[in-house]
Amino acid sequence: MADAVLLLSGGLDSTTLLAFALDEGFDVHAMTFRYGQRHATELEAARRAAARYGIRDHVIVDIDLRTFGGSALTSDLDVPKDRDVARNSDGEIPITYVPARNTIFLSFALAWSEVLGAGDIFIGVNALDYSGYPDCRPEYVRAYERMANLATRGGVEGTNAVRIRTPLIDLTKAQIIQLGLRLGVDYAETQSCYDPDPTGAACGRCDACQLRLRGFADAGMADPARYV
Amino acid sequence: MADAVLLLSGGLDSTTLLAFALDEGFDVHAMTFRYGQRHATELEAARRAAARYGIRDHVIVDIDLRTFGGSALTSDLDVPKDRDVARNSDGEIPITYVPARNTIFLSFALAWSEVLGAGDIFIGVNALDYSGYPDCRPEYVRAYERMANLATRGGVEGTNAVRIRTPLIDLTKAQIIQLGLRLGVDYAETQSCYDPDPTGAACGRCDACQLRLRGFADAGMADPARYV
Repeated sequence: MADAVLLLSGGLDSTTLLAFALDEGFDVHAMTFRYGQRHATELEAARRAAARYGIRDHVIVDIDLRTFGGSALTSDLDVPKDRDVARNSDGEIPITYVPARNTIFLSFALAWSEVLGAGDIFIGVNALDYSGYPDCRPEYVRAYERMANLATRGGVEGTNAVRIRTPLIDLTKAQIIQLGLRLGVDYAETQSCYDPDPTGAACGRCDACQLRLRGFADAGMADPARYV
Repeated sequence: MADAVLLLSGGLDSTTLLAFALDEGFDVHAMTFRYGQRHATELEAARRAAARYGIRDHVIVDIDLRTFGGSALTSDLDVPKDRDVARNSDGEIPITYVPARNTIFLSFALAWSEVLGAGDIFIGVNALDYSGYPDCRPEYVRAYERMANLATRGGVEGTNAVRIRTPLIDLTKAQIIQLGLRLGVDYAETQSCYDPDPTGAACGRCDACQLRLRGFADAGMADPARYV
């Protein structure tokens, strides 16, 4: 089995990604970040997903992105509620964007993949139903992959080229849900909300909740997650 | 004054870099990493340099690269001594290479630059007298810069393009020392050694010490740093 590093947040996308990578036959090494996010209950969702899928190797990396601030997810800024996410095609970048977060996450995944000798890094970015984040776009992912192949031992020695795998990037949220259901994902166990209550119940009103709820509606089913 | 983020380890190269960036007129925000390195006394050298140059904004970021291992700098592997560093042009990557370290460091610097609105990131990589590390090569730096400009808010909005500035990349160690001396750098205060004793005295035998000592010899002067 080929080794792969997979970025697992415990949300809908990354849990579907995990099921997909395992179904493809990869030996998955999962990586989750405790980065000062207000929705740290997602760490429990990540642990549940890793346990459910029998992942032997699940690392939780501690980094404190509150050092910089600049995002509603890592500071005292309010998480926007009841925005019209369907109109989010105007290129506006919401305040929930965390500066360079995916670049930081991928860089730790790159380090781990180099030590493991893993040639694949999975990240659940999504360019269709995305929230306007620059680091979810296909051109960003391609540029990251190109950089990664110059950054590491394999890039010098011509071995172990790294692929940044983004199988969800062109799917709608409804298509991601349909894929996950075919693969047996239990979406009741996943957490997407940016601003859950202390028990992990989702707010139902932030961008992440709205995109998720719309995805389930488009897929013709109810979201089994807990809402406040 | 334009804001810049500068990666400061407290070594010869990054301290010269700091003097250079200040001489160029930048308002420098310095960033240092406590990453589990065995030579953590370099943090004191970084603090001394920041204090000496009156840097208001000096962040020490905690990340634990021992999670992955894979390097003599972050594990119990022995730091090689008495190697022939002059012969290090054969493309061999030494065991002191830390997987994806510069990529991780630059990614934190990128996040901070985005929050600050800083358009320049300084890193003291060096491709001539370098130790065979893939993430010190010009083609790597160019690929990183291209990725960075797609990763962030400025890359979407067309504002605040980020430049990865590497003014030392084409200099020999002797030329870096001569530059620093012109700028008033006190090299007694800098620490380059990979394996110093607990007081911070350099071993004189690791690759970093050998490259440094050869640089001072080529510059026609004695290294004022403390050696065991």
